[in-house]
Amino acid sequence: MDLLRSRWSATSSALCVGLDTDGKKIPAVFQKSKNPLFEFNKAVIEVTHDLVCAYKPQIAYYAAQKAEDQLQMTIDYIKKTYSDIPIILDAKRGDIGDTATMYAREAFDRYGAHAVTVNPYMGGDTLQPYLDYKDRGVIILCKTSNSGSGELQDLRFDGRAIFEIVAEKASKDWNKNNNVCLVMGATHIEELKKVRSIVGEMPLLVPGVGAQGGDLKQVMKVGKDSRGHGLIINASRSVIYAEGKDFQKAVRAAAQELADGMRP
Amino acid sequence: MDLLRSRWSATSSALCVGLDTDGKKIPAVFQKSKNPLFEFNKAVIEVTHDLVCAYKPQIAYYAAQKAEDQLQMTIDYIKKTYSDIPIILDAKRGDIGDTATMYAREAFDRYGAHAVTVNPYMGGDTLQPYLDYKDRGVIILCKTSNSGSGELQDLRFDGRAIFEIVAEKASKDWNKNNNVCLVMGATHIEELKKVRSIVGEMPLLVPGVGAQGGDLKQVMKVGKDSRGHGLIINASRSVIYAEGKDFQKAVRAAAQELADGMRP
Repeated sequence: MDLLRSRWSATSSALCVGLDTDGKKIPAVFQKSKNPLFEFNKAVIEVTHDLVCAYKPQIAYYAAQKAEDQLQMTIDYIKKTYSDIPIILDAKRGDIGDTATMYAREAFDRYGAHAVTVNPYMGGDTLQPYLDYKDRGVIILCKTSNSGSGELQDLRFDGRAIFEIVAEKASKDWNKNNNVCLVMGATHIEELKKVRSIVGEMPLLVPGVGAQGGDLKQVMKVGKDSRGHGLIINASRSVIYAEGKDFQKAVRAAAQELADGMRP
Repeated sequence: MDLLRSRWSATSSALCVGLDTDGKKIPAVFQKSKNPLFEFNKAVIEVTHDLVCAYKPQIAYYAAQKAEDQLQMTIDYIKKTYSDIPIILDAKRGDIGDTATMYAREAFDRYGAHAVTVNPYMGGDTLQPYLDYKDRGVIILCKTSNSGSGELQDLRFDGRAIFEIVAEKASKDWNKNNNVCLVMGATHIEELKKVRSIVGEMPLLVPGVGAQGGDLKQVMKVGKDSRGHGLIINASRSVIYAEGKDFQKAVRAAAQELADGMRP
């Protein structure tokens, strides 16, 4: 949490670049490399590191491609080269206590991520093993950016939607170590406004502004905390697969445009 | 689904052994091995294979221990040696479409599991990539066995609890390919009864009878389908870490006692 707040102060950028690296989508030049995903990530980081408040590798991509080693190399590289940039492992884990302890070990001890995303469906006791890592961030799904997110998250109990109840629990019950953040999709502006009013200064990880079509201006308007920060706005595909003759220039331009739109 | 139903017919056992293999808990003799988790699993499988309807490796354990290779070896070994036993990869994944596609690849293409557990919090569109694998099982969390499961799952909307809504959606909307199962914790008998009445013949994966204290007799009484099957009752720690002078004899005895209690 300190790393994130320092980074916000230093860069005034809310941009998080999602490293959803798919071996089939990266430029041909990387595909010949021994560690194509890592080399691609390194090239993306080279031209975006001064524009971001965080990086967010999505573990599913590395798992599907049997490339846990390249995920580790990517995290180690960022920590060594840009030690002031927080790294969020996007894993959306959720399981009972003993198993959650193993997932927390995976994210924090094995990979050394600063924060991990988790799923609240199983209840607060299943989040505890992550929350117990006082110096790591726990980013809980609240209202997600996908089209079907309302199917459960918008159901109402005593007039409050499930996602509001998650926000209340996150704020009141789960944040004893001041290490909780929430995922709030950029595609739901009213819900974002509502959740900001519930959680005060809690950081919000906001996916969905790039390929998914969320409105960046609206997100900035309603999502910021009282200090003008509070947002980690993620873009993955729209940045890392930006099209242009020169791959790195295209990535930089896409990141720059987003970061500029996020400055107060 | 065919594999599971054949197995039920052949063995009349509902026992699923969970391979939650922790290098710190296995007998010392395995700890010296090059592949301790795999060798331990093989020894467990050797004395339980005739008693089970399925095996369920929990991926978190292998991920935390940087032992993806031993998970793969375990799955490959079961498929080669006991090809009539379904393998459930317990992963409880949940993410948006593109990422879910990667997680489905991880479970089904990389590891070759017959089924995977998933989390419904993000909505039906996020389950679709798994459901599209018509010849694989998709086991959706409904009402889980942990003490905090009610925090969200028991909230009521128009008189129906969230877990009931999940059961209805699973039955009506998500089961087009007839490849859906639900997770129903053994620690909630009334809820199990209710869900069985909603989902008809859908198989239910029931954790929580061993170390977690669920009542096996009650589970058998209310959980079976009209054909007397329909249950995959998981025990992990109470079987694989059964105490006794001879490790394999203790495991066999624990599995035998459970399997006997599960016969119609």
